[in-house]
Amino acid sequence: MLQSELFPKTRKEAPKEAVSINHKFLVRGGFIDQLMAGSWTLLPLGWRVVAKINQIIREEMNAIGGQEMLMPLLHPRSIWGETGRWGSAKDNPLGAKEVMYQFKDIRGREYALSFTHEEIVMDLLRKNINSYQDLPVYVYHFSTKFRNELRARSGILRGREFMMKDFYSAHTSEKDLMDYYNKMKQAYSKIFKRLGFEFKITEASGGVFTENNTHEFQVLAETGEDTIYYCDNCEWGENKEIFKGKEGDKCPNCRNGKVVKSKAIEVGNIFPLGTWYAERMRVYYQDQKGRKKPVWFGSYGIGPTRVLGALVEVSHDENGIIWNPTIAPFDAHLIEVKGQKSKVKSFAKETYEKLQKADVDVLWDDRNVSAGEKFADADLIGIPVRLVVSKETGNKIEWKKRDKEKEELLSFQQVTSRLKK
Amino acid sequence: MLQSELFPKTRKEAPKEAVSINHKFLVRGGFIDQLMAGSWTLLPLGWRVVAKINQIIREEMNAIGGQEMLMPLLHPRSIWGETGRWGSAKDNPLGAKEVMYQFKDIRGREYALSFTHEEIVMDLLRKNINSYQDLPVYVYHFSTKFRNELRARSGILRGREFMMKDFYSAHTSEKDLMDYYNKMKQAYSKIFKRLGFEFKITEASGGVFTENNTHEFQVLAETGEDTIYYCDNCEWGENKEIFKGKEGDKCPNCRNGKVVKSKAIEVGNIFPLGTWYAERMRVYYQDQKGRKKPVWFGSYGIGPTRVLGALVEVSHDENGIIWNPTIAPFDAHLIEVKGQKSKVKSFAKETYEKLQKADVDVLWDDRNVSAGEKFADADLIGIPVRLVVSKETGNKIEWKKRDKEKEELLSFQQVTSRLKK
Repeated sequence: MLQSELFPKTRKEAPKEAVSINHKFLVRGGFIDQLMAGSWTLLPLGWRVVAKINQIIREEMNAIGGQEMLMPLLHPRSIWGETGRWGSAKDNPLGAKEVMYQFKDIRGREYALSFTHEEIVMDLLRKNINSYQDLPVYVYHFSTKFRNELRARSGILRGREFMMKDFYSAHTSEKDLMDYYNKMKQAYSKIFKRLGFEFKITEASGGVFTENNTHEFQVLAETGEDTIYYCDNCEWGENKEIFKGKEGDKCPNCRNGKVVKSKAIEVGNIFPLGTWYAERMRVYYQDQKGRKKPVWFGSYGIGPTRVLGALVEVSHDENGIIWNPTIAPFDAHLIEVKGQKSKVKSFAKETYEKLQKADVDVLWDDRNVSAGEKFADADLIGIPVRLVVSKETGNKIEWKKRDKEKEELLSFQQVTSRLKK
Repeated sequence: MLQSELFPKTRKEAPKEAVSINHKFLVRGGFIDQLMAGSWTLLPLGWRVVAKINQIIREEMNAIGGQEMLMPLLHPRSIWGETGRWGSAKDNPLGAKEVMYQFKDIRGREYALSFTHEEIVMDLLRKNINSYQDLPVYVYHFSTKFRNELRARSGILRGREFMMKDFYSAHTSEKDLMDYYNKMKQAYSKIFKRLGFEFKITEASGGVFTENNTHEFQVLAETGEDTIYYCDNCEWGENKEIFKGKEGDKCPNCRNGKVVKSKAIEVGNIFPLGTWYAERMRVYYQDQKGRKKPVWFGSYGIGPTRVLGALVEVSHDENGIIWNPTIAPFDAHLIEVKGQKSKVKSFAKETYEKLQKADVDVLWDDRNVSAGEKFADADLIGIPVRLVVSKETGNKIEWKKRDKEKEELLSFQQVTSRLKK
C-alpha cells in the first residue's frame, strides 16, 4: 500500500487527555480514533492488526472444534429475565454497577445491548438440543460488547463498546466440561504465545458470571490495572481479589517457589459455568437411559481490541510501537529518501512491486516529505522491518529491524528470504 | 467437517410463522435462528456463507482502493443532531417512521444505535482532513445496522438488526465524486455477478440520505418486495417510486427497447451525497490556492445478510437450497450410505481425509442415519456437489451436482480435478 493514500496521516501530538501509552501511540500512529469516551473507530491500520489478532484466535478455536457463528447484539429483556441477570448485571458483585445498557424503544419493547451472550447461547441450545448425541457443542463469535463502565479509561483497554471473541461450550457432564475447560486453557496459552505476550494464568472469582472460581490470562505490564500474584517456580497464580497472602510468601502450591506480585492487563478469561444457566433457562438433554439432565456449560472470552492496546503497552519505545511480526499491520515499511529528485523513485517503485509479487505485505512511504519525518513515522507506526532506498544504497536495500539498532545493506534476494522466514 | 458435530441439526419442519422461502429453508437447514422478530443468529453454516459473501465484497472494494476499518455502533445524539437526522430519521421521506433506535442511558447520555454511518465518517474526516492532498479518502467496514422497522418480515431479508458493508468516499470535486461513483457502480456489478445474481441497476430517490437520485442494485425475484421497471434492450432502469410510465412503454433512454416490469430484491445501493453533509458538519479542505471548500461525499451499501436471503429466494427447488459454488458453505458434501455396517466407513474416511489434503472444503455426513435422510439433508443444505460412497460404488465415488439429475461414477482423481476447476 502507498502511504500517501493511507487514511489518516500520523499525528505529531497525542490528544491532551491521553494518559496511557496505547492511547497516545495508537492515536498518533493512526490506528484508532475516539468517537466518544470509551468508543473507538479501528482505523485501517488498527483494523489490520485486529484482523490478524482475530485470525490467530480463530485458528486456535477451530483447532479445538470451535464453530464460528454470529449472534445478535440487541437482546430482548425477557431472555435476561430468565436468569435474573437483567437485574443483577446492574449491580453485580464485581462492583461494576449499571454496566448493562438497557432501554425501551418507542413501541414499548425493552432491550439490552449485548453485555455478554450466555443467555443467547442457552436459548439456541434449548431450541436445538434433545439428546446426549447432540452434545458437546462448541460455538463462538467475534462481536461487539457494550458495557456502561463508570469510567472509560486507559485508551482502548477499557471501552464502553469493544470487540470480544466469546466461545461457549455445552456438555453432558462436569467431567466433559472440565476436560474441555483444560483444553481451552491450553488453546488460550497458544494464542497468547503466538501474540508474543509474557503472561500468567491466575485464578479469580467468577463475578457476575458464576459462583465457581475461574481463570484469567494476565499479561505482565507495569501499566496494568490489575494486580496479580504468581509463583516464580510453578504455574500457580491468583488475582488480588482472591489471594490471601502477601508477596514473598512461599508458594501455596509447589511449596518451593516464592510468590511474586505484578501489575498486569487481563486479556482473556475462562469460566466453568456448570449447570446454573441450564437450570434457570431449562436447557435439558436426554441421557442414554432417557433421563432428563441439565447441560453443563462454559464460556471463554478474549478481547481483541484490548489485546491491541495491551500489545502497545508492553512493546514500544519512546518513539513508538514495536509490533510482533505475527500481528503487524504490514510485514515491511519501504522508505525512499529524497525519492522525488533522483533515480531513487524508480528503484523504490521497482522494489515495491517486486516485494508485492513476492507476497510481502509492504507499506511504501512514497510521500514527498523529509527523511527525518519518514523515519519518525516508521518508528511510530512500528512495522517490524524498515527498508530504506536512497542515493547511498545504490542497488541494495538498507535493512533495519524496528527493535534493533543495526542497519545492513542487503540485496533484494536477501531481503525477501529474511522476510519469508 | 463431520456432520455429526455440526451445530445444529437440520429440521424437518419450517417454523409455523415462516412465509418466505429463505425463512423456511435457512431455518430448516440450520443456517439461521431467530432470536426475536427481525433478529437472527447466523449459525455456523450461515456464517460460512456470509463470510464468503463478505470476502467477495472485500476483494472488489480493495480493488478500487477501499481501506477496511471498523466504526462504533453506539453513537452520541450530538453528532446526529448536527445534520438534523436525529429527528428526520424518525420520520423520513421513505415513510420508515421511527426507524432509528434512540435511548438515554441511566446517566442521562443520549445515544442512537447505528442506523447508518455517514455522520460518523464525517466526524472522522473533519478531524483528519486539511488539504486537497489528504483527499480522496475511501473507507469501509462490515458492521451491524439497527433499524426499528414497523414490520420485520421476509425472513432474513428485512431485519431490525442486520449486517451491512458500508463504504464512504470523500473527494475534492463533484467530478471526482462522480467518476468514483461510476467506478463503484462497476465494482458492485462485478460483486453481484460473482455472487451469481441476475440483477438490474435502477435509479431511485435518495430518501433520507440525499435529495439526489441514487442507484439500487435489484435482483430479479418473483418473491421480491420491490417493483422495478427496466429496458429489455439497454441498461435503463427505475424503481416504482420514480418511474412515471407503465409496462410496455418505449424505453425513455434508448427509444428502442420496451419497459419491462419485475418484482425484485434490493441488495445494494449507492448514493452520490454531494456536499450536504460537509456543509452541515463543517468538513472542509484547503484547495491548491488555499481556499476552504466543502468535501464531496458518497456512500455505498450492500447488505450481506440480505444477500444471503436473496440467494435462497432465487436459487432453490422444492427440496432445498442450491448454492452457487462461490459462496457455498462447503465445496462438497460426502455421504456414506450404510457406512456403519461395511467397509464403506473406512473408504469414506479415507476419501474425506484425501479431499481435505487436496484442499477441498468438505462436509462428511458420517451419521448413523438412513440414506434417505442423508440425501434429503444434502438437498436441503444445498452444497453444490454431492459425493456418495456405498457398497455399490466400490472404489469409485458417485458424483452429482445439486442442480443436475445426472449421477456419475468417478475416480478420486476425477473428483478433485473437477472440484478444483
